Amino acid sequence: MNESRVKAKTHTYPVYIGENLRYQTDQYLPKSFSSIFIITDETVAAHYLQDVQKSLANETIFSCTIPAGEQSKNIDTFYHLHTKAIEYGLDRQSLIIALGGGVVGDVAGFVAATFMRGIDFIQMPTTILAHDSSVGGKVAINHAQGKNLIGNFYAPASVIYDVQTLHTLNDHELRSGYAELLKESLLADKELYHSLIITDLSFLTSDKLIEQLTRGIDIKAEIVEIDEHESGVRKYLNLGHTLGHALETILGYGSWTHGELVAIGLLFAIRVSEKTYAIQLPYEQLYTWLKDNDYPLQLPYIDPAEILAKMKKDKKTLNTTIQMVLLQDIARPALMEISDKKLLNYLYDFQIEMKQRSE
Amino acid sequence: MNESRVKAKTHTYPVYIGENLRYQTDQYLPKSFSSIFIITDETVAAHYLQDVQKSLANETIFSCTIPAGEQSKNIDTFYHLHTKAIEYGLDRQSLIIALGGGVVGDVAGFVAATFMRGIDFIQMPTTILAHDSSVGGKVAINHAQGKNLIGNFYAPASVIYDVQTLHTLNDHELRSGYAELLKESLLADKELYHSLIITDLSFLTSDKLIEQLTRGIDIKAEIVEIDEHESGVRKYLNLGHTLGHALETILGYGSWTHGELVAIGLLFAIRVSEKTYAIQLPYEQLYTWLKDNDYPLQLPYIDPAEILAKMKKDKKTLNTTIQMVLLQDIARPALMEISDKKLLNYLYDFQIEMKQRSE
Ligand SMILES: NC(=O)c1ccc[n+]([C@@H]2O[C@H](COP(=O)([O-])OP(=O)(O)OC[C@H]3O[C@@H](n4cnc5c(N)ncnc54)[C@H](O)[C@@H]3O)[C@@H](O)[C@H]2O)c1
Ligand SMILES: NC(=O)c1ccc[n+]([C@@H]2O[C@H](COP(=O)([O-])OP(=O)(O)OC[C@H]3O[C@@H](n4cnc5c(N)ncnc54)[C@H](O)[C@@H]3O)[C@@H](O)[C@H]2O)c1
Ligand SMILES: [Zn+2]
Ligand SMILES: [Zn+2]
Repeated sequence: MNESRVKAKTHTYPVYIGENLRYQTDQYLPKSFSSIFIITDETVAAHYLQDVQKSLANETIFSCTIPAGEQSKNIDTFYHLHTKAIEYGLDRQSLIIALGGGVVGDVAGFVAATFMRGIDFIQMPTTILAHDSSVGGKVAINHAQGKNLIGNFYAPASVIYDVQTLHTLNDHELRSGYAELLKESLLADKELYHSLIITDLSFLTSDKLIEQLTRGIDIKAEIVEIDEHESGVRKYLNLGHTLGHALETILGYGSWTHGELVAIGLLFAIRVSEKTYAIQLPYEQLYTWLKDNDYPLQLPYIDPAEILAKMKKDKKTLNTTIQMVLLQDIARPALMEISDKKLLNYLYDFQIEMKQRSE
Repeated sequence: MNESRVKAKTHTYPVYIGENLRYQTDQYLPKSFSSIFIITDETVAAHYLQDVQKSLANETIFSCTIPAGEQSKNIDTFYHLHTKAIEYGLDRQSLIIALGGGVVGDVAGFVAATFMRGIDFIQMPTTILAHDSSVGGKVAINHAQGKNLIGNFYAPASVIYDVQTLHTLNDHELRSGYAELLKESLLADKELYHSLIITDLSFLTSDKLIEQLTRGIDIKAEIVEIDEHESGVRKYLNLGHTLGHALETILGYGSWTHGELVAIGLLFAIRVSEKTYAIQLPYEQLYTWLKDNDYPLQLPYIDPAEILAKMKKDKKTLNTTIQMVLLQDIARPALMEISDKKLLNYLYDFQIEMKQRSE
């Protein structure tokens, strides 16, 4: 088992990464609690809820299962979970455990952040993508008009990551999570990048997962420790997301996973970087790896003007010119404003190229 | 104009208290903002919204008016205000102004705390009670099953308190706010207590208000600076609230104001203190002042067992024995567990006494 530590403004918390941790949850509790409320989703509950419940047999525990999927990150689920917390008699010395992927982590974390103005919570991520979402303290629900618009910065008391749970993820979810790992490696760690680019997603071992996820979490932790509230370098974490988010909005959530579209966004960011800095980056290598691992790289052609419009609606940009995260090299990110005209050209060329390659 | 400063964990903020400040709101902004969203209620809007809007004529401003009263502190208003904030294009550099009493301050503050994970907000209190609620950083909405159950600790960027707005408050609201001032004086300031106990609520001057409210805010600030997240001395602020809250739940919100019931709670806390410590406190003096200022002191008789049950449901008590804030003297508060048996007796005696006095 590996242990990392993350410094938040309010406190420092441990991240435990290993196999079978869910059978020993009680051993990773930072202190004693008056009661424990486990929040999970239907899919995860079917696989792992009992294991966690059994490991907490000596505690006063309650649990609530929400529907799986992004649509659970809404105000009704949020209020419903508060109702349950009250009915179960939770108090300020209670703990919430978020057992699941990023959706459960985000909504359960936001419930913990707001129940009686904040109680402790523990992240127990069960997806690869959640190595990212469980660290850094961002919790939120979606508004009908945009993702993650209602939330807090609220760091967990600890993160307990049982990589064995990852073996039941389907291929889409594996690809989704690995795209974020790739992003982190491109931002900060050549060695991790070289390890990832030879990883075959259909033969993932627990050892490999522990090694790569620990590295990914450490990268994320380093960045959020410098800039917890996202006023500076934390923006680097948006690498690949300028296009990725726009595609998510246009194509609708669900058909492609978040990370699969981020993967395409990474290719685009690399291409724009190459043109902006007149350099060569491992575009080909990344493309080949994504193709070999069955990432969906064929998208319907979308009018660049429509993509640009969605990028501008993405609330993370302040002014009207789009700011993209680019790479001057692997592990050398930079923020760059790209004029509308250039961006439209890049988007057009990129789509033509992607289409030709897939023929 | 007086200026106090309050130290929160995240930052220190100024509290400006004076006359006519609402005409110069722009001069009290801590920095420049991309846009300003004023949240107020119907009653306050009718009196003061225009003044504030005019004082911000050089800014990009939006406003939203919610119905007056406690029932606006709910999840629907909260979500509605988020919708408006999105529609008006607020971003992370925007400001929310809470113009109103504790209700507006609590809900608008919670919207600010959660919009895009937190943007700046300014409290512009317009009730006497809000001298208390605008300082200390507690923001919240109610759950159908209990008050203030969903919220954050989130300190304002500043507090701008125009005491001239207080002259349009009705008598119930004056009494409500003055009960909290009395509470603060009893907790920490004999001099303020002696000033309050000779104040005639039907002849309040702006000078007197500035003087007494500044002192009240300073007392509150001192307490929350030591214990922002209410794990220790901040509990003292519950003086008078053990019975006050129980009566609010039983009698229903609305017929009596919060502070009017807290006033009765203060009498009760003093009586229990006298018995517990075998001392003499100015019970008579306080009773007389409350009566002279038309506080409603005649309540229907309520079964002590019912009151005790409500006290126990009040989420601020951790264990089953009720913990009350008592006074060993004026300005010498203490926390004390009172056994159920004793408490039932005290409640019974107190009600009999109140009834006899009012005959
Ligand atoms: N807070 C942050 O910093 C942050 C960062 C990135 C993403 N996010 C959020 O994370 C969410 C996406 O996270 P996600 O991809 O984990 O989505 P998710 O939680 O919806 O999980 C994906 C799917 O996998 C299922 N699943 C989860 N664990 C499983 C397991 N062990 N075995 C089998 N199936 C399992 C889930 O039921 C779900 O259907 C988004 O809402 C995104 O906004 C947050
Ligand atoms: N956050 C905290 O620390 C804290 C502390 C104490 C109380 N509170 C909360 O504060 C709320 C009570 O505050 P309140 O008593 O100010 O209630 P309020 O905001 O409802 O105001 C009382 C009434 O006075 C009206 N009003 C406000 N200003 C006026 C003015 N200048 N002239 C005429 N009418 C005016 C309002 O429209 C309302 O009808 C409760 O919800 C309570 O939970 C919060
Ligand atoms: Zn992402
Ligand atoms: Zn009060």
